[in-house]
Amino acid sequence: MTSDPPSLSDADALAALAGSFSGRLITDAAQMAPFLIDWRKAWTGTALAVVQPDTAQDVAHVMAWAHANRISVTPQGGNTGLAGGSQPAMQGRNIVVSTARLNRVRAVDAQNSTITVEAGVILQTLQQAAADAGRLFPLSLAAEGSCTIGGNLATNAGGVGVLRYGNTRDLCLGLEVVTPDGRLWDGLRGLRKDNTGYDLRDLYIGSEGTLGVITAAVMKLYPAPAAKVAAFVGLETAHQATALLQLAQARAGATLTAFELISDRALALVLKHFPATRPPFDSAQRWNVLLEISTPVSEAEGRAELEALLAAALDQGVAADAVVAGSLAQSQALWALRERISESQSAEGASLKHDISVPISRIADFIPAGEAALLAIAPGARLVAFGHLGDGNLHYNVSFPEGGDGAAFMALRPQINLAIHDLVAAHDGSISAEHGLGLLRRDEAARYRPAVETDLMQAIKRALDPLNLMNPGKVLPPL
Amino acid sequence: MTSDPPSLSDADALAALAGSFSGRLITDAAQMAPFLIDWRKAWTGTALAVVQPDTAQDVAHVMAWAHANRISVTPQGGNTGLAGGSQPAMQGRNIVVSTARLNRVRAVDAQNSTITVEAGVILQTLQQAAADAGRLFPLSLAAEGSCTIGGNLATNAGGVGVLRYGNTRDLCLGLEVVTPDGRLWDGLRGLRKDNTGYDLRDLYIGSEGTLGVITAAVMKLYPAPAAKVAAFVGLETAHQATALLQLAQARAGATLTAFELISDRALALVLKHFPATRPPFDSAQRWNVLLEISTPVSEAEGRAELEALLAAALDQGVAADAVVAGSLAQSQALWALRERISESQSAEGASLKHDISVPISRIADFIPAGEAALLAIAPGARLVAFGHLGDGNLHYNVSFPEGGDGAAFMALRPQINLAIHDLVAAHDGSISAEHGLGLLRRDEAARYRPAVETDLMQAIKRALDPLNLMNPGKVLPPL
Repeated sequence: MTSDPPSLSDADALAALAGSFSGRLITDAAQMAPFLIDWRKAWTGTALAVVQPDTAQDVAHVMAWAHANRISVTPQGGNTGLAGGSQPAMQGRNIVVSTARLNRVRAVDAQNSTITVEAGVILQTLQQAAADAGRLFPLSLAAEGSCTIGGNLATNAGGVGVLRYGNTRDLCLGLEVVTPDGRLWDGLRGLRKDNTGYDLRDLYIGSEGTLGVITAAVMKLYPAPAAKVAAFVGLETAHQATALLQLAQARAGATLTAFELISDRALALVLKHFPATRPPFDSAQRWNVLLEISTPVSEAEGRAELEALLAAALDQGVAADAVVAGSLAQSQALWALRERISESQSAEGASLKHDISVPISRIADFIPAGEAALLAIAPGARLVAFGHLGDGNLHYNVSFPEGGDGAAFMALRPQINLAIHDLVAAHDGSISAEHGLGLLRRDEAARYRPAVETDLMQAIKRALDPLNLMNPGKVLPPL
Repeated sequence: MTSDPPSLSDADALAALAGSFSGRLITDAAQMAPFLIDWRKAWTGTALAVVQPDTAQDVAHVMAWAHANRISVTPQGGNTGLAGGSQPAMQGRNIVVSTARLNRVRAVDAQNSTITVEAGVILQTLQQAAADAGRLFPLSLAAEGSCTIGGNLATNAGGVGVLRYGNTRDLCLGLEVVTPDGRLWDGLRGLRKDNTGYDLRDLYIGSEGTLGVITAAVMKLYPAPAAKVAAFVGLETAHQATALLQLAQARAGATLTAFELISDRALALVLKHFPATRPPFDSAQRWNVLLEISTPVSEAEGRAELEALLAAALDQGVAADAVVAGSLAQSQALWALRERISESQSAEGASLKHDISVPISRIADFIPAGEAALLAIAPGARLVAFGHLGDGNLHYNVSFPEGGDGAAFMALRPQINLAIHDLVAAHDGSISAEHGLGLLRRDEAARYRPAVETDLMQAIKRALDPLNLMNPGKVLPPL
């Protein structure tokens, strides 16, 4: 990371800021470095300072200062994003506003099933605070030990609980936001119904820090289930998987809390790279589904429900083999087969990721069509398809050809991305289901989005951030 | 209704419009009249014409014409709104764009659990189309036989299914919208996950026609439950009702699909004005809750679940009496006691309505505090509280003093509204939970809303409708 030293006027501006707010001001290059590079080490930005305000009022103060000095601001939570949304720009006068010190759980209202948290609260801390109150906060994703709720909101994060509980957007009732000119909006409502004007909340959610800084939120809580029970199902075709989903939703209703698709190749990679894992079936199946029931009654009841469901599935020919976890340890072992896919694929070598969604009714046709398009560009490339089938969301990833040249494969990335994303568009899908746009998918998204839609988004950006100070260059192509 | 005849230039403009689009152009005053007055006969507007386009493209054509001629447009669905949002302005050059002919179900995708409908589809028609595909469309409200999905979206309508399925917003995946300058935005996505830019969908939902014309939508469908079973519970205090809600949610999870509070006075009015109705208990209870379980399994299973839940409630002292419907007819009879409250109150005479929400944890304290404030202004006035307790949403209505002067009572309306709404604000609540602002609550909402929030809304309005052509004067005070 290299950056020019701040000019005198920048130094003067920083001197004026220092001591005028409560929090931490970091200007040392070495200390700033981890805030300027993303988790995947793909993007590096520059900044005059990294600022960690203590309170939302301090954020407002910092933002007013940035506004007066025409300095760009990139909000940053746990910096675990996958799309390059939380680094400052590579040029210009920028600061990072880190939410690290905005880490208070402000209130838990168990009877209202809500929790009010500051943006820098780690997702796992939030989950624990809910559990301590006898409630469930259902958002759950791989980075939960280090990502923050502010980042989850800014990217509308998904994860493994969406089938039942929705995306982060669906879990939020109210927001506190600092505007680009340094005003603090208190929209921290804990209401299930409130029709008193435009939905600003959902506009900030998913805007990746380009419209303002989310400083706190009121999130929904749910009754903690009495037990969760997982099962692993083997299938011959992806069409069977969507049919099984229909059956499971009809029979289990909202107690069905996960429905994850895992291809044979994805499972084989986990078994290869994690020798402690065990195959769920005696003979490998072309497709696998990990499904989970969360029951309000008891573990025994959940297991009985799941066994009856799978018996019906075998009976109707929408499952070829099935195993129900007999204990919490067995459930965890089944989940590990799903959770270790990403790491296994990394361990295997060069790979590409696509975070896509298509209507559930088209997913089984999309999978082979995408593979054909892939193989036409990169013969021998290995499709590693898995993901949240119940949400229509696949991590449609690709590993380099076995025994092939990883670098040569990676050089095909633009063509492969384009072919897969064109096909996603042809299937009425989305090229960014849960990871957001950041820098990674900004221009691709603009390519597929109707022009009028981009115009409307640009109009909103201009209206709410007329000086283009908030996380410039992210989400939307520069004006 | 009186209005000036159109000037020559207006006549010329209308002549240019007529025949240039497919649909119906109504300019006859008598034929226009029902479109210019609201359902409660509280507001009457004026219009040069009522236009009923045949297709979304025709709406775009009409809107471009209106834009070129600087004519204001009020979109109108079933015209069943309660807040005066669907009448044109009382002065100026306006048209009504009625969605009456945009009434096609464009597609049902049972496997994706989605339905694509035009804005003018009647809610009941949509429910039926879902049922025909073996699915449930869960939005349900009193006006469902005549309101349209476009109006439901424009007002983010609530109803009796919100506890489980959410408001109209939560049921929508994609929109088609005509902008104020006549461009057609196709955002008709049927995806559960899509993070590719700002959330325009939720901005249009609930904006009451002030930002554009919703012409079609992709709505979510759910598995049809095997059975619904209702129960009526008598309680001594409102605190018991919120405790019962906690218990019911913990035990029944998402199978709890309704939780409606009914005061003794509300129930008594129904029994008085609908002589065919029967009291649910031998001795009247101070409070009543109508709750409903929707089970994916069977009616017998649902009844057993409900009986076990109510046994636990009686055991824990959060219910004083309870009856579970033994048949569909009994369930309907119990629901009738809830559904006929509004009519009964109208039959009783002069009354005021408040459509409010507060956090569920504060509702039991709010109710008597509001009654005390009410009685200080209008001694003898009768609080008739009922509504969607599970959503924190009460119809906190008031009937005139028994034997008193209805007109004198109605003259107190501004003071009563103010006192109740001040108290709602003090309880962190909303003065318009599910009916929207329209004209009725526009200025009151602005009074309680933080100034920065109103500023942000005005900025969005200016950005998306710079000529202020869309339903001017609704939702936000004039700029």
